[in-house]
Amino acid sequence: MDAKLLQSYTQEELRAALDETGAAYEAFRAKKLKLNMARGKPGPEQLDLVMPLLNALPADADPFSESGDDCRNYGLLSGITEAKKLFADILGANPDEMFVGGNSSLELMFACLQIAYVKGIAGCEPWSRQGEVKFLCPVPGYDRHFALTEYFGVKMIPVPTDETGPDMAAVKQYVESDASVKGIWCVPVYANPTGIVYSDETVRAFAALKPAAKDFRIFWDNAYCIHHITETPKTPLTINAACAETGNTGIFYQFVSTSKVTFPGAGVAAMNTARENLDELEKALGIQTIGFDKLNMLRHVRFFGNADSMRAHMNKHREVLAPKFRIVLDMLDKEIAPLGIAEWTKPEGGYFISFNAPKGTAKRIVQLCKEGGVTLTGAGATYPYKNDPDDSNIRIAPTYPVQEELRQAMELFCICVKRAALEQLVK
Amino acid sequence: MDAKLLQSYTQEELRAALDETGAAYEAFRAKKLKLNMARGKPGPEQLDLVMPLLNALPADADPFSESGDDCRNYGLLSGITEAKKLFADILGANPDEMFVGGNSSLELMFACLQIAYVKGIAGCEPWSRQGEVKFLCPVPGYDRHFALTEYFGVKMIPVPTDETGPDMAAVKQYVESDASVKGIWCVPVYANPTGIVYSDETVRAFAALKPAAKDFRIFWDNAYCIHHITETPKTPLTINAACAETGNTGIFYQFVSTSKVTFPGAGVAAMNTARENLDELEKALGIQTIGFDKLNMLRHVRFFGNADSMRAHMNKHREVLAPKFRIVLDMLDKEIAPLGIAEWTKPEGGYFISFNAPKGTAKRIVQLCKEGGVTLTGAGATYPYKNDPDDSNIRIAPTYPVQEELRQAMELFCICVKRAALEQLVK
Repeated sequence: MDAKLLQSYTQEELRAALDETGAAYEAFRAKKLKLNMARGKPGPEQLDLVMPLLNALPADADPFSESGDDCRNYGLLSGITEAKKLFADILGANPDEMFVGGNSSLELMFACLQIAYVKGIAGCEPWSRQGEVKFLCPVPGYDRHFALTEYFGVKMIPVPTDETGPDMAAVKQYVESDASVKGIWCVPVYANPTGIVYSDETVRAFAALKPAAKDFRIFWDNAYCIHHITETPKTPLTINAACAETGNTGIFYQFVSTSKVTFPGAGVAAMNTARENLDELEKALGIQTIGFDKLNMLRHVRFFGNADSMRAHMNKHREVLAPKFRIVLDMLDKEIAPLGIAEWTKPEGGYFISFNAPKGTAKRIVQLCKEGGVTLTGAGATYPYKNDPDDSNIRIAPTYPVQEELRQAMELFCICVKRAALEQLVK
Repeated sequence: MDAKLLQSYTQEELRAALDETGAAYEAFRAKKLKLNMARGKPGPEQLDLVMPLLNALPADADPFSESGDDCRNYGLLSGITEAKKLFADILGANPDEMFVGGNSSLELMFACLQIAYVKGIAGCEPWSRQGEVKFLCPVPGYDRHFALTEYFGVKMIPVPTDETGPDMAAVKQYVESDASVKGIWCVPVYANPTGIVYSDETVRAFAALKPAAKDFRIFWDNAYCIHHITETPKTPLTINAACAETGNTGIFYQFVSTSKVTFPGAGVAAMNTARENLDELEKALGIQTIGFDKLNMLRHVRFFGNADSMRAHMNKHREVLAPKFRIVLDMLDKEIAPLGIAEWTKPEGGYFISFNAPKGTAKRIVQLCKEGGVTLTGAGATYPYKNDPDDSNIRIAPTYPVQEELRQAMELFCICVKRAALEQLVK
C-alpha cells in the first residue's frame, strides 16, 4: 500500500490495497498466534520487580502498627495509621481523611454506590427510592466504572472529553440543574483509555461545582497518579488542593490503589474524602466487614517506607512500559498516520492508548483482530452500555504482552485497521 | 455468701449478702482494671502459633497456581483451585462448588444479601422491590448476622433454640408457609453464642425444607467447624451430605474462613453453594471486584498443604483455649451454680459461652461489669434489634484475655451476677 492519504486513492488503488491487506491478514492468521491486548494488566516483568515485597513481613516481624494495634487481629476498620499516611502522601491528602481497605479500589467504589443506593447519604433518601438517578460518564471511559453504575440501574449520560478533560460546561449544566444527577466518573490522571491528564482549569471547575443534589459526589479514580512513562511527569493540580480553595471539600470520593504498583489483586486500596463523608461511609462499611487485611497494609508500608520510595519504584515500571508504548505509537505513526484515517492519543503515563478508527469500523477491526489471533478490548467498551455511537473508539492496552508479541499484535492491528477502512471505501 | 439456693434465703440473709457482694464489688473496682471479654477474638498466643505462615510465600516463591495462573496478576474471580480444594475438604464439599475470596466471610454473606436485595436471585424480583421480606433468627445468635439483615431492612423473626439447634417445627412452619421469609441465620457447629452443635436430625430437617419462596436460602455460617476444644470432637452431619440425600442442593449458602485459624483480617474466606447459585453470584461479584487476594490464598495453601494439617494446627488452639473455657466454667460452677439463679452452656468448641442470668438482670450485670472494669458483649446483642425480651442472655467470650486476666474478669462477673440477682430479690 502506498503511504498516502487514503482519501486520495482511486477506486482501483483501493481495490488493490484491499487485496494486498487481505493477503497480509491471511498470512498473519496462518501463524495461529494467540495474543492478548484486552486488559490493563501489568506484565510479569513488572510483577517480578516487586517480589521482595513478599519478604517485607516475615515470621519474626513485629506485627504491631505504630498505633500499638496488633495487625494480626480484628480491629481498625479504616486501616492502619502508617498506611493512611503513605496513601495521603501519594495523593496530597490529609491522613485523617483516608480509609485504607481491601485489595481493590473498584470494591471501594462499589461500596460507595451501594451505600448511597441502599441507605442513602448526606441525609438523602436511598437512590433505590429516588426514582431515576443519573451519572455523568466522560467518554471514552472505563468499562468497569460503567458496569458499576449499570449494576445499580443508574442512568448513564455520556459527556465528551478533550485533551483537558471532560466538557466542563456540559458537566456544570447537568450537575447544577438536575438533582437526579448523583455523580460523575473521573480518571483525572492518565485517564482510561485516553491517557489525558485533566488540566488545572478542569480540576478547578470540578471544585467549583454547586450540585443540585446534596448526595452528588465526584468519583475521582486516581488509579494512575504515579504511573508516569516520561522522566519529567506533569504535576497536575490535586482535587484536594482545588477543593480546599473553594471550600467544597465534601464533593469528591477519591480512590487509589497499589494494584498496578505492587500486585493486582494482592495490593492495597484506599479512599479519600472529607471526614464527615468517611464517618458516614464507615458506619455502613462496619456492617459488612470487621476489617480489611492489615498485615498486607503493614507489608506494603514496611517495604516502601514512604511515598518517595514508592514513586522511585514506579521509575522501574516506566523503564518497562515506556518502550511498549513506543512500539505501539511508532507502528501507528508508520502504518496508519500517512493514510489520514485515524487518530490516537500519545499518553505520558497510565495503561492505555485510545484509538479512533474510521467511523463505523471499530467492531469490524476488533472482530478481524480476534479472528487473526489478537484479543482487544471489545469495541464500545469505552462507552456506557457498550454503545459507541460512532463505532470508532478502540482501547489499546500495551502493558501485558512482551515487546515481541506486542509488535506482532500491533502488526495485525494495523492490517485490520487498513482492511476495515478499505472495505468501507471500496465500492 | 452461703452456697445455697438463693430462693431459700430469708430477706435478712439477702440483705446481708447484698452488702457483702457490694463490698466485694467496690474492692474489685478499686483495682481499676481494664479487661475485655466483649468480642470473639483469638488471643495473641494463638496468633503467635501461625507466624510461620508469613514465610510461606517468600520473594523467591513460585507465584503460579496449579492451574498455571499467575497469582500476582488479575484474574480468577472465584479463587485458585488449590484453595477451593482445601476449603472443600474442610467442609466436605465439592471443590467445583467453592468460591474463595477476600479476608472476611461476613463480607461474602453481605454480598449474598446485597445481590438478592439489588438484583434479585433465582429469577425473583430484588428484595428491595418485594415489600417486606423476613429472615429467621435463631436466638440467642450472632449480633453481626443480625446487623447485616437489619442493614437491608429485612424483618427479623426470632426462633428459639435448644441444645439440638433451632426449633425446626417453627422454622418449617415459617419457611414453608410464608414466601416473604427469605432466609435463616445458622451457625451449625459451636453456635455463636451457645456453642451447641446442630443434631443430625436438625440438619436433616433443614435439608428437607420446601420453602415457599424460590429465593429462600439457608445462611449456613460454618465459622467454627474445626474449632474444637475437646480431644474427641463430634462429627456432625454436613449440610452438603444432608442436602445430597434430599436433592435440595441449592437451598444453602455455606460460609467458612481462616479468620480464627490463621489471622483475623488477614485470613481467607470461602463460600460453598450449588454451582447454579455460584454462577449467579459470580456474575454479580464480578462487577464489584476484578478478584480477591490470590497470593494470600497461595500463602495459606502452601503453609497448610491440606485440610488434615489445618485440623492438626487447630489442636494447638485447643491447648490454648480449653483451659480458658475451663476457667470460666469452673468459676461459674463454684460461684453461681449453688445459688440456682442462672444457666449456661458448656461448649465443646467455638468461641463463646452463653449465660442466662435471672430475667431482667442482664443489662444491669453488663453495666456493673463495665463500671467495675470489665467490658462484656452488650446485653441484648444476641437478639435481633438488640432486644432480648427476658433481658437475660449474656455472651461470654473467654478467648482473648490471658488466663490470669480471665480469672479476674470472671471474678467480677460472678460478683455482678450475684449483686444483680440480690438487688432484684431484696425488698
